Amino acid sequence: MDLKLISSNKSFGGYQKVFEHFSPTVQCNMKFGIYLPPAESENEKFPVLFYLSGLTCTEQNVITKSGYQRFAAQYKLIVVCPDTSPRNCNIPNEDEKWNIGSGASMYVNAQQEPWNKHYQMFTYITDELYQLVQNTFPVIQDKISISGHSMGGHGALLCALLCPEKYKSVSLFAPVCSISNSPTLIDGLKTLVGEEKHILQKWDTTFLVKEYDGPEMEILIHVGSDDEYLIKDLLIDDFVEAANKSKDNKIKTTLFLEEGYDHGYYFISTFIGEHFKFHSSKLSV
Amino acid sequence: MDLKLISSNKSFGGYQKVFEHFSPTVQCNMKFGIYLPPAESENEKFPVLFYLSGLTCTEQNVITKSGYQRFAAQYKLIVVCPDTSPRNCNIPNEDEKWNIGSGASMYVNAQQEPWNKHYQMFTYITDELYQLVQNTFPVIQDKISISGHSMGGHGALLCALLCPEKYKSVSLFAPVCSISNSPTLIDGLKTLVGEEKHILQKWDTTFLVKEYDGPEMEILIHVGSDDEYLIKDLLIDDFVEAANKSKDNKIKTTLFLEEGYDHGYYFISTFIGEHFKFHSSKLSV
Repeated sequence: MDLKLISSNKSFGGYQKVFEHFSPTVQCNMKFGIYLPPAESENEKFPVLFYLSGLTCTEQNVITKSGYQRFAAQYKLIVVCPDTSPRNCNIPNEDEKWNIGSGASMYVNAQQEPWNKHYQMFTYITDELYQLVQNTFPVIQDKISISGHSMGGHGALLCALLCPEKYKSVSLFAPVCSISNSPTLIDGLKTLVGEEKHILQKWDTTFLVKEYDGPEMEILIHVGSDDEYLIKDLLIDDFVEAANKSKDNKIKTTLFLEEGYDHGYYFISTFIGEHFKFHSSKLSV
Repeated sequence: MDLKLISSNKSFGGYQKVFEHFSPTVQCNMKFGIYLPPAESENEKFPVLFYLSGLTCTEQNVITKSGYQRFAAQYKLIVVCPDTSPRNCNIPNEDEKWNIGSGASMYVNAQQEPWNKHYQMFTYITDELYQLVQNTFPVIQDKISISGHSMGGHGALLCALLCPEKYKSVSLFAPVCSISNSPTLIDGLKTLVGEEKHILQKWDTTFLVKEYDGPEMEILIHVGSDDEYLIKDLLIDDFVEAANKSKDNKIKTTLFLEEGYDHGYYFISTFIGEHFKFHSSKLSV
């Protein structure tokens, strides 16, 4: 496994880096951002927060726009920001639509031709990159949490609900909570996994949360009241209602509806400090 | 004077807005970003910080990448972020080179054809936009400071040295300090103002600081030790040396050379809080 350093910039005493590597899971080169906080000694190790970005984003959006490095340095967290899909795979029309193909992996494992050769993002995030980060960087083993925005919120929920033993805490910005019921997103999901209802539901976090039977999980959610996707595509209330009925109350959600905020990075940067504080408290246990 | 609202996003309790207007000074439409901090009453007024961006930037770079809104909200400052030049003026080759034309006004008033019709950025910043902001937004009259990055640092220094009565304080990130001695920038400057040495020096802040005879002025400067432009194009040491010999010690500089930081927004975002604290202390006097 060779990592190619694309960029390295000092930020808040640590380093914001971008690496590229060939991923056997998705069969193409993938980039990810990683922030390494300032270390007090050569041997110091840190907990890790994964951050999954939204539809159309690359790793660049969150590393340039959220200002998270201030809090990654303060709370001493490594932060990993994967790209949102395979790219340049020579799949016909892969770059044609903003909600199908490049930038729109939906963080699932595709079953449909021709996407299934590359679009195995769920395994890439929860297995390949998860291991790569622990094997390559100064990580405290198993001290790993996950966060995400919009489609990346859906991705973070998928990871946490399907692999709860891998993540200590989950936080979400304006998450897509029931992808199979989103009119904007259902076509992209069907392109990747087919039209069968039980398969669509397998990747729908509101269905998954009803069946959840893992360890206790706390989920922090922020969303803006002026988010243009709030009503039609995020479907957060349905998720929270289902989560609140989870078996043995294993899932606890805390939802903040923030007056006047929209869907973008001005919203995220305003509240990202609270998410880092939340994860830091869970990762320090 | 009509202002067209291009965007408005809630951020840290206030609003990051972008406006467009026709500027009689530069004879084209100009955009600027403005952050309005959260107000406690309808009549509350605020001091203003202008921030001038570097070569090739638009108003978008600083409003999306610096994270300044956190501090503008905390210190209750309006922040105005102009574009870096006139655009779409139908000047031949105006978009051909990154260091001549669009994005490269050098913040001077051009004298050379065909640029002189539009490239009057010094007057635009110090007069037209300065008045527009005071007449349009909830500004405490005359409580105005200025900051800038790289070429915008040069611009901020020009504004402060030539119009010292208009700005309460000056802060600079990796500023260009002697534009007529920068091999990267001299061609662009000559394109705008001609080749005569005394005119080139008129827009060179290291020459201007030697002649400065205005009110006392404190200048805060941060620059990274790994800044790729540090040695050849910024020429900060020459400026500081000249400033330290200023008449009656009217100019005081505080320069921080920050180990390992480069020229970009990861550097700026790390230190922008200190600049807002500096300006806030000067504007509250």
